[in-house]
Amino acid sequence: MTNFIKLFSGIGIVSLIFMSCQDTNTKKITENDTQAPKYVFLFIGDGMGISHVKLTEAYLHSLTQDKPGFEALSFDTLPITGISTTHANNRLITGSAAAGTAISTGYKTNIGRIGKSPDKTEKYESIAYKFQDQGYKIGIVSSVSINHATPAAFYANQDSRKYYYSIGLDLIDSDFDFFGGGGFHKADSLADKNLYALAEKAGYQIYRETINPDTLNVGEKVMLVNPILGSDAEMPYAIDRAHEGGYSLADITKAGIQQLMNDQGFFMMVEGGKIDWASHENDAATIVHEMTDFDLAVQQALNFYLEHPDECLIIVTSDHETGGLSLGNASGGYDTDFAMLKKQRMSYYRSRKISIDKSFDKSMIEDIYGIDDLSDWELSMLALAKHPQDNPDYHMDYGAYHPYLKTCNKILNLRSGVGFTNWDHTAEPVPVYAIGNSQMLFSGSYDNTDIPKKIMEACGFDY
Amino acid sequence: MTNFIKLFSGIGIVSLIFMSCQDTNTKKITENDTQAPKYVFLFIGDGMGISHVKLTEAYLHSLTQDKPGFEALSFDTLPITGISTTHANNRLITGSAAAGTAISTGYKTNIGRIGKSPDKTEKYESIAYKFQDQGYKIGIVSSVSINHATPAAFYANQDSRKYYYSIGLDLIDSDFDFFGGGGFHKADSLADKNLYALAEKAGYQIYRETINPDTLNVGEKVMLVNPILGSDAEMPYAIDRAHEGGYSLADITKAGIQQLMNDQGFFMMVEGGKIDWASHENDAATIVHEMTDFDLAVQQALNFYLEHPDECLIIVTSDHETGGLSLGNASGGYDTDFAMLKKQRMSYYRSRKISIDKSFDKSMIEDIYGIDDLSDWELSMLALAKHPQDNPDYHMDYGAYHPYLKTCNKILNLRSGVGFTNWDHTAEPVPVYAIGNSQMLFSGSYDNTDIPKKIMEACGFDY
Repeated sequence: MTNFIKLFSGIGIVSLIFMSCQDTNTKKITENDTQAPKYVFLFIGDGMGISHVKLTEAYLHSLTQDKPGFEALSFDTLPITGISTTHANNRLITGSAAAGTAISTGYKTNIGRIGKSPDKTEKYESIAYKFQDQGYKIGIVSSVSINHATPAAFYANQDSRKYYYSIGLDLIDSDFDFFGGGGFHKADSLADKNLYALAEKAGYQIYRETINPDTLNVGEKVMLVNPILGSDAEMPYAIDRAHEGGYSLADITKAGIQQLMNDQGFFMMVEGGKIDWASHENDAATIVHEMTDFDLAVQQALNFYLEHPDECLIIVTSDHETGGLSLGNASGGYDTDFAMLKKQRMSYYRSRKISIDKSFDKSMIEDIYGIDDLSDWELSMLALAKHPQDNPDYHMDYGAYHPYLKTCNKILNLRSGVGFTNWDHTAEPVPVYAIGNSQMLFSGSYDNTDIPKKIMEACGFDY
Repeated sequence: MTNFIKLFSGIGIVSLIFMSCQDTNTKKITENDTQAPKYVFLFIGDGMGISHVKLTEAYLHSLTQDKPGFEALSFDTLPITGISTTHANNRLITGSAAAGTAISTGYKTNIGRIGKSPDKTEKYESIAYKFQDQGYKIGIVSSVSINHATPAAFYANQDSRKYYYSIGLDLIDSDFDFFGGGGFHKADSLADKNLYALAEKAGYQIYRETINPDTLNVGEKVMLVNPILGSDAEMPYAIDRAHEGGYSLADITKAGIQQLMNDQGFFMMVEGGKIDWASHENDAATIVHEMTDFDLAVQQALNFYLEHPDECLIIVTSDHETGGLSLGNASGGYDTDFAMLKKQRMSYYRSRKISIDKSFDKSMIEDIYGIDDLSDWELSMLALAKHPQDNPDYHMDYGAYHPYLKTCNKILNLRSGVGFTNWDHTAEPVPVYAIGNSQMLFSGSYDNTDIPKKIMEACGFDY
């Protein structure tokens, strides 16, 4: 009987046949739907896997409902879903530079490159410039610094994501219409070459104090910088906004839409950049707040869609998963209690910042995570974290983070039912959500390099 | 500026609007595509998350290619993908009985129930009976016992999945046309009530020895039992088939298609049941072999589709994720080497079976997992596993499994780059893949209870 298996074991052949079927089916369906969208939104949740979406939804549901379930994020109700692979040219687990380049240009490249080929000899053109060539206005928004890898991939061509100054110069040269969110990282690392001053000289109106976005001068080139920035020129975590102040990602997105609105159309990329940061820190409560904040930004586009339903294309996706996040862990087994994440009062990042001079004892987990009934096992984990060098699993347990504070955070994660496998990115696929003109192109499984090609196809641009 | 956030913070309202949009869009597209499918396949990879699919693809790719990438499983090339939640009525992390009932009947129920309401008072009707009522032939295939939770959900109504004998009687009463794969679990637990004998008496032709499936008598009711069964009447793991013998899931699926083929149509459910078992055991190499075996079974349906492209609907999904599997872990960070999984010579399950009388030393990890260069850290993990009662993280590290063998297995997982967070199921969403008539119904995010409703809609049945 094993003979007939051999007959059909040519996975490659069957796959090819179905890839052909896919093309045919997609084309047939999109014949009804060939009008190019005038307003194109691309949202990128940095580090956002499918589990990040569902953890947030389970958390939101748990705040108001006793029965298990999920309260859908707005983008998780869009009619089309796809699944995208994310690997880099030289590593299965990608980074934001290579993944950003894949999504912005359609090319695989090596870890760290921004809009350049693996060997650095070739520049890859971002779809943002293709839109600009066609008369669309362009907006780039990120909750991390505006010359960070993901936003940079849409306007810069540099050998390394670390060349913040050169990336900043590429931003200024882009002549794009709106930049919003974080500021320039290492803005003035070279004494007389302050990036803000150079941007202003190039015609950008720069807002660095809190303003009413209705006063933005439509028609000019604008850079709307969050008035509160962290040490890497990033916006504070959403969970800390009450303490830290500043805009939300939705505030910036709404201001950007106002600034970009025009009859020729616009292309806008909005990155929720700190989903990734909180995921690196395996900080589940901070993740769900970042995710909710990201969704509120997407809602600005969805509100716009309702006013322009025949002229929009909205894509929501991610550059890679971070953390190996799961809804469940070996400590809880089949049990979860995500509502417990609400007890956490601030991000791990902020707890680190404000605790520098404090002694590390049990009061910390009570203050920050609301836990006052530690089990013997939890107490033993905290005791070990005070002498982390005695822990043979140091890297597995603490990563590059503060052992004691990280253990406090981990105890809440474990109790609530969140699991993590990694302090870094993973090669998990990421979800794609779509609505609008030619939305059907985004169904199925594909690679992240296909995303800009699909956007170009939807818009009728040559690729 | 925070005012305009308040205006749009009604996530529920926006979601509702887009759910309406979704209905409209879906209907518009499926107007082209209203012919009811005559041949309906539902494949369920038990425990299969999106990461299981991608791990297998990355592994297959790594066997022949140096560059990072994924070799698509055949079902991952289907044109439509969806994302399904899986929670039970009374627990966010579901089990196979409640999830099977959701997929077979469209109703949420409590953990453990088979086709019955949470309070046990109401029977829910499986779609398999709806197909039977419409004159379709019915086939049920599973690699685990045929009265296990997932297959049972398609023909039985019992308060508990543990009522194997009663479930077996429901199978016999179903009058379905083909059962294949595992045998009856606890077939003769009640002396004079042997389920095989009862099935034979009820008209089933039962094959328990190796046969040529071409000799099956088409037209009769058939039960094709794998000639080699484990202690729970399950088929052996694919990775162990060379040692253990027996059919593959594809063999059984092909035989089932032959048996069911007729002009009135058929409905066939095929479960890859041991993806879940290997995931409970956090046994990555065994998972990728089970996944490949499952895909070969799906390919039987895809081959059939190519001969009947206008008359089929093929759905591939899962009942829940198991293991919190990720492509990456904290030990490897950004590095993976999935090709290393090829070194594993047998399942953890088989290693446990054959090692009962052996001493547990380093030779075991060399023999079974091909690792002969243990690091100090790995040696310390193995040393601890010989005295597991000294390990405060006993449950986290070993679950309910053999500490030493499980640690050997874990060392290979960690080296290859696989991560796990749980010995149990998780509440991760699962993927849905579709091709065929009304395939568009399966795009988007939805709940597992929607799957049978979509199948019914595709077939024009009342629900």
